[in-house]
Amino acid sequence: MNNAFIKVHCPATVANMVCGFDILGFALESPNDIMHVRLIDEPTIIIQNLDDYGLPTEPEKNVAGVVFKEIMQHEGNAFGFEVMIQKSIKPGSGLGSSAASAAGAAVAANHLLNHKFSKDELIQFAMFGEKLACGVKHADNITPCIMGGVTLVRSIHPLDIVRLNAPEMYVAVVHPQIEVKTSDARQILRKEVQLKDAIRQWGNIAGLVAGLEQGNYDLISRSLEDVIVEPVRSMLIPGFEAVKQKSKEAGALGGGISGSGPSLFMLCKEKNTAIEVEGAMKEVFIQLGIEYKSYVSKLSQQGVTCTES
Amino acid sequence: MNNAFIKVHCPATVANMVCGFDILGFALESPNDIMHVRLIDEPTIIIQNLDDYGLPTEPEKNVAGVVFKEIMQHEGNAFGFEVMIQKSIKPGSGLGSSAASAAGAAVAANHLLNHKFSKDELIQFAMFGEKLACGVKHADNITPCIMGGVTLVRSIHPLDIVRLNAPEMYVAVVHPQIEVKTSDARQILRKEVQLKDAIRQWGNIAGLVAGLEQGNYDLISRSLEDVIVEPVRSMLIPGFEAVKQKSKEAGALGGGISGSGPSLFMLCKEKNTAIEVEGAMKEVFIQLGIEYKSYVSKLSQQGVTCTES
Repeated sequence: MNNAFIKVHCPATVANMVCGFDILGFALESPNDIMHVRLIDEPTIIIQNLDDYGLPTEPEKNVAGVVFKEIMQHEGNAFGFEVMIQKSIKPGSGLGSSAASAAGAAVAANHLLNHKFSKDELIQFAMFGEKLACGVKHADNITPCIMGGVTLVRSIHPLDIVRLNAPEMYVAVVHPQIEVKTSDARQILRKEVQLKDAIRQWGNIAGLVAGLEQGNYDLISRSLEDVIVEPVRSMLIPGFEAVKQKSKEAGALGGGISGSGPSLFMLCKEKNTAIEVEGAMKEVFIQLGIEYKSYVSKLSQQGVTCTES
Repeated sequence: MNNAFIKVHCPATVANMVCGFDILGFALESPNDIMHVRLIDEPTIIIQNLDDYGLPTEPEKNVAGVVFKEIMQHEGNAFGFEVMIQKSIKPGSGLGSSAASAAGAAVAANHLLNHKFSKDELIQFAMFGEKLACGVKHADNITPCIMGGVTLVRSIHPLDIVRLNAPEMYVAVVHPQIEVKTSDARQILRKEVQLKDAIRQWGNIAGLVAGLEQGNYDLISRSLEDVIVEPVRSMLIPGFEAVKQKSKEAGALGGGISGSGPSLFMLCKEKNTAIEVEGAMKEVFIQLGIEYKSYVSKLSQQGVTCTES
């Protein structure tokens, strides 16, 4: 057994993509978590945090840990994993922090085990991490984190994932330093929706997928409208309407809440526009007196990558 | 003014396309309605039926008539139209009979007026015909009837229509000779739907659009699932489940109710398969003792076409 460490880059991801609640997501080039992972001979999991987030190191309480554990058990507990984790994607940011840990663990293990698992299997393993993090086995961050690009989770049961074609795009992200719990963001959603709203939503989703596949930026822009989830969840995020309006004025194609928030994202056709939009978004939180972090990134065509340390 | 007749071919269309309720539709190569239309000097509308359907010939009660009337009024009543209509698409079949009349009238008028209107304007005019026929200005049959191929109505207000790319496909259609009123088919739908069902539906719509754009028949097939409208409307159509099951066994990609029914359609990758599927569909209605008509057609890349008579 080769017991050397590999280095794993785990990208931030944006789930939902405005109208695609629970089905669409995409990967960013940055920020990235870094993991160092190796196989060990004993059937155990050793976790060390290299960052200051104070996440648990007990395997059954750690998102990467539970994924390694599932894989270990699947393979008859014939070996274990040692991992050092340096997170840059802040937990609770809405940028797929738990998905980065979960997907990173699954892809790293697969790399160390000579790529024995399919993409579907990796997503199945990684969903155990999401279940620990937010109580639900959702795949809308994990899928782009593993596959890169823009992805569709057509169905969870049975799992059916699709990589969508998409033109070059940039994204401006602002993360106001407030807390929105995924579980709260889920609870405030109504269990029933108006049929007319659902029809409007699926018109937008169809338009967004067609716009991405056809490389039609205008259609993408017109389709980035959410009449179901955003009107409810945006109430949890101060400054939301101002960010949206000022980003549009600065040239953004459109955008909204990243995952369940509080991060907000705006898609742009060009990098310069994304930088302008980032400035407009920052301005809103400066005026509100709310601390924030912000990013500009290209949409990544790559998901988690592993290199020899 | 050139007052010669032109000959207009108006294709049958299938709206909804299983999961795309109110937004997706496609055009068939056959059946077709034929119209002969010419401009006349007097601001009046003369309608003559060449078929046996007994449709009204008063312009304000005739689907083509109201469309001609809107266009006449838009142009300051400076001229009129004379039209002879030979319908082959039976009214009430669910194959876009009223859309064929409405779209045919709009495209014919545009041809005679030197193509002064945009596609969007033609759809707006034609929607007056749908309003007369079924009380609602819907565009999911009109749009493919005018544009051909597979189309998306992303939004009605404002009107936003998109031509989708699609691989070669064939369709088997069976029209049991029973009556399902569009207004009844609309009334039995619930005004609210479960969010979880809506999510499943928009996953399928996204999958269907991606499958069409990518020419991925397997993805198209998996995405042809409707968890919202079909479970309710299919109760109005005897033999529905048997048609679906036997069509799948005969190799159909999938299908369902055409528009609000009673016609049923099944998409197939190849013509031979579509012929097999047509046979399987017919068998169901023979056993039920219900009269039917059936068709096999290629998906048409063309909408309404005009030629000199």
